[in-house]
Amino acid sequence: MSDDDQPPRIRIRVVFGPDEMMGPGKAELLERIRATGSIAAAGREMGMSYKRAWQLVETLNTMFSAPVVESTRGGARGGGARLTDAGEAVLDTYRAFEDEAYRAGREHVERLQSMLRDIPGGK
Amino acid sequence: MSDDDQPPRIRIRVVFGPDEMMGPGKAELLERIRATGSIAAAGREMGMSYKRAWQLVETLNTMFSAPVVESTRGGARGGGARLTDAGEAVLDTYRAFEDEAYRAGREHVERLQSMLRDIPGGK
Repeated sequence: MSDDDQPPRIRIRVVFGPDEMMGPGKAELLERIRATGSIAAAGREMGMSYKRAWQLVETLNTMFSAPVVESTRGGARGGGARLTDAGEAVLDTYRAFEDEAYRAGREHVERLQSMLRDIPGGK
Repeated sequence: MSDDDQPPRIRIRVVFGPDEMMGPGKAELLERIRATGSIAAAGREMGMSYKRAWQLVETLNTMFSAPVVESTRGGARGGGARLTDAGEAVLDTYRAFEDEAYRAGREHVERLQSMLRDIPGGK
């Protein structure tokens, strides 16, 4: 960390309906599946049970019109998983939204931060 | 609901530090305190215990450099609560951030929505 204040992070959840949400947890899970090639490994990195990670993937696969994660079979990595094109698009779009939202609202976030008692990571 | 699709809602949490966060729950609590003049009543409307509502107010009062909620004493409403100027500023700034973020990212949110299997509230 430099002299600069640690910038605040924002966490955005998009709520489409009672059972349709996309937020930071699912985005991180997708990213880690992409990186590890495995739902179990991705979940483990996030301190999530195997069951929970699979449930989240199932939720995502049901929620979107095309599956976002598919299994890879055969070869040395049989039983692995990867993002589909739809999964890449969902992740990219969500991250683009986060970036845009943060840039657009930065001034307000900084105003909130200036009202804090202690600025974490500051000075 | 009309022929129009129900627009997705977004929920934004601003994370300043490990114990400093501002999100939809705290914003709603502040709004309801303003409306009801009572921390207990505000919490009750949100299905929150009296203790939990007070804890959240304490967290906010400690987190910002000036208290955001103060008690009102005397008169028919002795024991009530109201937002301070700092509280109004925190709430306004947070809501302004939400609006700005949503407007800025609307295109991305709509893209995500178009990828859903069923568009909730739609058709």
